[in-house]
Amino acid sequence: MTIQERLSALRALMQQHHLDAYIIPGTDPHASEYMAPHWAQMQWISGFLGESGTAVITLDKALLWTDSRYYLQAEIELQGSSFTLMRESDIDCPSITNWLLASLHHNAQIGVNPELYSINGYRTLKDSLLVGHMSLVSIDLIASVWTQDRPSIPANPLYIYSDTFAGETVESKLLRVRDTLKSMRCQAMVVSALDEIGWLLNVRGSDVDFTPCAIAYCVLELDRCTLFVNPDKVDAEAAAHLRARGVTLQPYEAVFDYLKTLSNQMVLLDGNRVNEALYECVLTQSQCCVTSPSPVQVMMSIKNATELSGERLAMRQDAVALVRFFRWLETEALKTPQTEITLAEQLHRFRQMGKNFMDESFGTIAAWNANGAIVHYAAKPDSCAPIEGNGVLLLDSGGQYLDGTTDITRTTWIGNPKSISPTLKRDYTLVLKGHIALAKARFPQGTRGNQLDVLAHQFMWQEGISYSHGTGHGVGHFMGCHEGPSNIRTDNNTNPIYLGQVFSDEPGIYRAGEYGIRIENLITAREATPMARTTGETYLEFETLTLCFYDTRLIDLDMLTADERQWINAYHARVEREISPLLSADEAEYLHTKCVAI
Amino acid sequence: MTIQERLSALRALMQQHHLDAYIIPGTDPHASEYMAPHWAQMQWISGFLGESGTAVITLDKALLWTDSRYYLQAEIELQGSSFTLMRESDIDCPSITNWLLASLHHNAQIGVNPELYSINGYRTLKDSLLVGHMSLVSIDLIASVWTQDRPSIPANPLYIYSDTFAGETVESKLLRVRDTLKSMRCQAMVVSALDEIGWLLNVRGSDVDFTPCAIAYCVLELDRCTLFVNPDKVDAEAAAHLRARGVTLQPYEAVFDYLKTLSNQMVLLDGNRVNEALYECVLTQSQCCVTSPSPVQVMMSIKNATELSGERLAMRQDAVALVRFFRWLETEALKTPQTEITLAEQLHRFRQMGKNFMDESFGTIAAWNANGAIVHYAAKPDSCAPIEGNGVLLLDSGGQYLDGTTDITRTTWIGNPKSISPTLKRDYTLVLKGHIALAKARFPQGTRGNQLDVLAHQFMWQEGISYSHGTGHGVGHFMGCHEGPSNIRTDNNTNPIYLGQVFSDEPGIYRAGEYGIRIENLITAREATPMARTTGETYLEFETLTLCFYDTRLIDLDMLTADERQWINAYHARVEREISPLLSADEAEYLHTKCVAI
Repeated sequence: MTIQERLSALRALMQQHHLDAYIIPGTDPHASEYMAPHWAQMQWISGFLGESGTAVITLDKALLWTDSRYYLQAEIELQGSSFTLMRESDIDCPSITNWLLASLHHNAQIGVNPELYSINGYRTLKDSLLVGHMSLVSIDLIASVWTQDRPSIPANPLYIYSDTFAGETVESKLLRVRDTLKSMRCQAMVVSALDEIGWLLNVRGSDVDFTPCAIAYCVLELDRCTLFVNPDKVDAEAAAHLRARGVTLQPYEAVFDYLKTLSNQMVLLDGNRVNEALYECVLTQSQCCVTSPSPVQVMMSIKNATELSGERLAMRQDAVALVRFFRWLETEALKTPQTEITLAEQLHRFRQMGKNFMDESFGTIAAWNANGAIVHYAAKPDSCAPIEGNGVLLLDSGGQYLDGTTDITRTTWIGNPKSISPTLKRDYTLVLKGHIALAKARFPQGTRGNQLDVLAHQFMWQEGISYSHGTGHGVGHFMGCHEGPSNIRTDNNTNPIYLGQVFSDEPGIYRAGEYGIRIENLITAREATPMARTTGETYLEFETLTLCFYDTRLIDLDMLTADERQWINAYHARVEREISPLLSADEAEYLHTKCVAI
Repeated sequence: MTIQERLSALRALMQQHHLDAYIIPGTDPHASEYMAPHWAQMQWISGFLGESGTAVITLDKALLWTDSRYYLQAEIELQGSSFTLMRESDIDCPSITNWLLASLHHNAQIGVNPELYSINGYRTLKDSLLVGHMSLVSIDLIASVWTQDRPSIPANPLYIYSDTFAGETVESKLLRVRDTLKSMRCQAMVVSALDEIGWLLNVRGSDVDFTPCAIAYCVLELDRCTLFVNPDKVDAEAAAHLRARGVTLQPYEAVFDYLKTLSNQMVLLDGNRVNEALYECVLTQSQCCVTSPSPVQVMMSIKNATELSGERLAMRQDAVALVRFFRWLETEALKTPQTEITLAEQLHRFRQMGKNFMDESFGTIAAWNANGAIVHYAAKPDSCAPIEGNGVLLLDSGGQYLDGTTDITRTTWIGNPKSISPTLKRDYTLVLKGHIALAKARFPQGTRGNQLDVLAHQFMWQEGISYSHGTGHGVGHFMGCHEGPSNIRTDNNTNPIYLGQVFSDEPGIYRAGEYGIRIENLITAREATPMARTTGETYLEFETLTLCFYDTRLIDLDMLTADERQWINAYHARVEREISPLLSADEAEYLHTKCVAI
């Protein structure tokens, strides 16, 4: 089918259902970061293959909203499609609701698939259309028009994630969640985010890129727990294992009917992560307690001792791969032509040598010079930059190990160090100072990430420089590399930093057309080492988990305080102490040169 | 009437109205910080004279909730009253709603005077009682029982605050607010906070302590503006002045009936500052847009150039008084016995010598040694400490000048400097480092105070020390010394710091039984001086307004960075440069010794 044929088929259905517009967001029913191709509905209807966007179809117009990261790609891919590109990062671009309010008549009916909207997202959209007396109709029209060549929902095996790695049994987790439900006067909970299901039932899968989760729904009640999953995914052993833990299996699609049978219960749903279709089913005979974050999301974000020990093991594997990579880059790589992509591939090969390595935790960003200034840069085979001459390499990568998830960014100089400009050094050092200030922070329990963010920003803000991404995201344990509910950003996130959560610490400076600098470690919040003068309150501090040297050639030493210099030297000594024993003599010697005190 | 007679009279009325409980909060109808005695209903019913508390009366019980600042006072004053003291700062103390839910029967009816509750406060209370099927009844019973010896509502003159000081005409302010109302699709607004009325109509008064406001209500419509005020307060000149600016006068009590006549309007009310009684009147024939902060509160918090110039003049007057005070303290005072109160009185006398001085901006806190550790300490004549021997004086004071409002805290050593302990120096320096870090901050427009707060906390948090008050409150212009909506606190306040707002910068360390340290300047947000490397975004920085030396004897120089030392020296040089010309030769010489570079 051509795009025109797809639009015509959709519009015929819209007319049949008296719809004036149909919205197709680029989301899946599980609020996933990485989606299975089955749900690429926005991409299918428009031909735009970027990862983020929303299509709006009226009877005579087709529009696609996407942000500035995708403008170029969208312009090319939408050519000849009759779609109008709506550049949503531009100040004068109307929001979808404002466009609908201005373009459609009073009392217009707008269709959406409620499985693709969170409860809160659906409600916000519905409320904002009220002023135009427009109403929202819950209906999936794409299922009826995308019938040929639609990828099926992935049916890859679900597998048991050993308690040895998870550090807590399913029984214990179910008990804790049920206790929380009782304290909230709820009798049931819908768990639909795939990472939450994986954590709760100690299962993993490989249905989507980068995040080891299995597509399923879960309904937890006080006396039962039902996993709704394609039976083809669960072999006899896994099924027995789950049943032994009190988990009943039902087919994936059965969740909707099941929720309609719940009666007179108070059911907890995460307003930001559970979809509207599930919510509407619950409301058939029960009541909903819509809250966010869900208790499961909070619990899984707080890593137990086993998970943190595993994370430290994963970090050592990752560090070995990075030492080998940087040594290869300095001594071997440039004897033959290299590009951003060949570097990323070689790093992947080094990581694959590591014990318990399963996958990358996201697509590696290897960005040379000006490409480094594009924050979400992804090199493409036909346009990636060759690594030639002097310059700055920004390398943001991570691994999924059975032991834990890693995510690290290093910015390094390639070529003649004499060509490093004072401005580059100054920028690198401003980023590093912020990175260190956050890593060194101590703060009372209950402090939020948005209170600490300024520590990373403070030095560059003095010079009028900032970055357009968050300072720190939560990180899962052999799970999503980006995890809620807490983070370290300027936003108004009300979730505090909990003991045992893992975050990235990744300030950056981006000079359009020149280079990008980002320095990223993972850190975990632990109780602060005893303080002589404490007032009795519990204080937290961060333990740095990542173990890889910085490029000291890029540091302007005059800009560092004695404390900062000492912090870098102590960190480098620790890196050498912990990683050298895992290396060959040559590799250890290379690492030693990188960790020399400054 | 004795307390028992008051309670009996109230309970008789409660029975008549079928009420199971009656709540009497320590508030007035204008959400005022300082209240006129007319509204001291909580104090009248209970005999407890503290400034903060809530009385709850049932048919057989009487309870008074207050916080730890007032425990001692309440214990004494409630003796023999039949009131039970509820220590609300204690972890095991139930909230009022939880106590009501646990103590009263299902379907209980609870009376409150809706004039004493903000719209949001009333709604929160009402919602939280729903689980017990209890209902709230809006009724003022105190008016019927407190008939003898009740102070009347103050009728002090309202006076015109010259445009020369205000920097913006009433006409201009009304135009701006009306434009905002139109943009919010509202046709009217209720202004009931006394500072907002004073700002909007360029009037002042002296009805309450410390804040130069006049008791009134104001209803602003697109085509008229009505001030509801006791006619005795408005002389012919003021009345003519107001009328010339399109302001109609009506009696104070007429506001309620007036609001009931508004019909088919969308009326804006600040949910946190407008009382429930007004809200209920508006709802008679119109609709309410309840929001917070109100546009007036935001506008008044953003000081114009005239207000800021005036503020700088007030600061110079204040600085002269402080130089004279500290010189007197060092050279003269201790030749005769002094107490915390005599010091405060002498400081008041020095301030009174200043041009345009009208009043103190709050009750001076002069706290000697251990008393300084009590954050909201107020010396009492019969218990205040004599100033004897060596020690630490914490002095927090401020003035209301026609030009502006000041608020300053200095902590100083009295006695032999050789007795200053290393711990005291360390504490003082930790506080000073935080105070400086906040003063030096630069940040993008849109940054909230809770993002910057950590700058003041960071050094003491490293040692497990904190303080239990906010870092910075907003400050009015010849108006409330504590002003919203923005502040610099750890709280989740979503209001950003706006260009032109004035804040305090006042970290502290408190050692129970030993001493308190607080260092406070006022600062105002201005556009950051041009930065060579800026990315185009607007950055803000703070200008320090307060001009008074720190006690450099209390600084541990080894703890300062070169930048901090340079900041202190530059500040002291500025203080000397700006204030010396206003002093006698002897005073200037004294100031010089205090401002010597460190």
